[in-house]
Amino acid sequence: MRYAVLGTGVVGRTLAARLGSLGHEVVIGTRDPAVTLGRAEYGEWRAGRPQVRLLTFREAAEQGGTLVNATGGQAGLAALAEADPAHLADKVLIDVANPLDFSRGFPPTLDPVDGDSLGELIQRSFPQLRVVKTLNTMNCRIMVDPARVPGAHHVFLSGEDTDAKTAVRALLHSFGWPQAGILDLGGIETARGSEMLLPMWLRLMGALGHTDFNFHVQGA
Amino acid sequence: MRYAVLGTGVVGRTLAARLGSLGHEVVIGTRDPAVTLGRAEYGEWRAGRPQVRLLTFREAAEQGGTLVNATGGQAGLAALAEADPAHLADKVLIDVANPLDFSRGFPPTLDPVDGDSLGELIQRSFPQLRVVKTLNTMNCRIMVDPARVPGAHHVFLSGEDTDAKTAVRALLHSFGWPQAGILDLGGIETARGSEMLLPMWLRLMGALGHTDFNFHVQGA
Repeated sequence: MRYAVLGTGVVGRTLAARLGSLGHEVVIGTRDPAVTLGRAEYGEWRAGRPQVRLLTFREAAEQGGTLVNATGGQAGLAALAEADPAHLADKVLIDVANPLDFSRGFPPTLDPVDGDSLGELIQRSFPQLRVVKTLNTMNCRIMVDPARVPGAHHVFLSGEDTDAKTAVRALLHSFGWPQAGILDLGGIETARGSEMLLPMWLRLMGALGHTDFNFHVQGA
Repeated sequence: MRYAVLGTGVVGRTLAARLGSLGHEVVIGTRDPAVTLGRAEYGEWRAGRPQVRLLTFREAAEQGGTLVNATGGQAGLAALAEADPAHLADKVLIDVANPLDFSRGFPPTLDPVDGDSLGELIQRSFPQLRVVKTLNTMNCRIMVDPARVPGAHHVFLSGEDTDAKTAVRALLHSFGWPQAGILDLGGIETARGSEMLLPMWLRLMGALGHTDFNFHVQGA
């Protein structure tokens, strides 16, 4: 399969590396490749992965069969706006981002929150995409290696398109998620629920002093 | 111990019944006892519990050694405003409520949300109380009988006063919560996290078709 991961931060790099190690063809999209290449952390990461091409958002959307939004905050909307609309048609977009707003300091708040969600905002803005919200409720190392947290725990799915959710389920399974750990919440509106776990996640990180935890719905 | 449960809905009745069965002296507070007594569901519940006195919010706050906010939405603020401030001094208030706003239909949204919480709002409005936010993240039958959901799962604590949290821990333990299932998030600001689980709780209820589930933080 071909994937285009939008976003070169630790979430995007972690997902791209895992997709590559599973044998997929992966490109990474960024606003300005020259700027990204100038960043020490990206250069270091890339050195071990010469096969992963760094492209503009526009080029990445064209190359990738499945898109992954791993940008920060609402940046995914601007990234997708740079793509040729024809290159988005009918593609699956896996949205792992959270609309975190750091403008008022730490911990960040969410924007939008409650009456809307980033997942819905992307789906409304780009109706030709088939958006599946998932993986946004945990640290990125757990996204691609759920066994990192011992015991049963959940990853959630929200989206309108059944086939897209089936494809994302298969990808999650290849990451190590058991079928029983994948909980389909329903349509993209349910992304409000999973995105609003983030404020709790942030406070759990503060209380526990680490990020190697994940939500489990006992009794599901 | 003496408890005053504010609120005569299913949450208040469930908590009052459990407290009574544990041998505590329990009163229930309501805005207008005559109106509450006229409600069939309250009358039916009360018939089996003649020892639980129904009082006004003001009387209940005076009688109760520990207060429990089991009102709906932000109604706890108005309930506490009816109390003589002298009767609130230094009392522990266990806040199990969520600021659910049904004015835009179902599912309800939260008000306040993200930049504030009901727990903080109560603590700011009544600084003489020692507010502990807890139990607000599950169905009320699980609050008082955690074994109803098999397996490990969590109840959260948020509050500024260590002694108050210790007392609430002991009460939760008497309800059946193991110490390992009680997770202290920190100060009352962390109530933002637990209250914001509600939108996810509502969507899980929709996806699962029942309310016999609870959050567990795997890896905590």
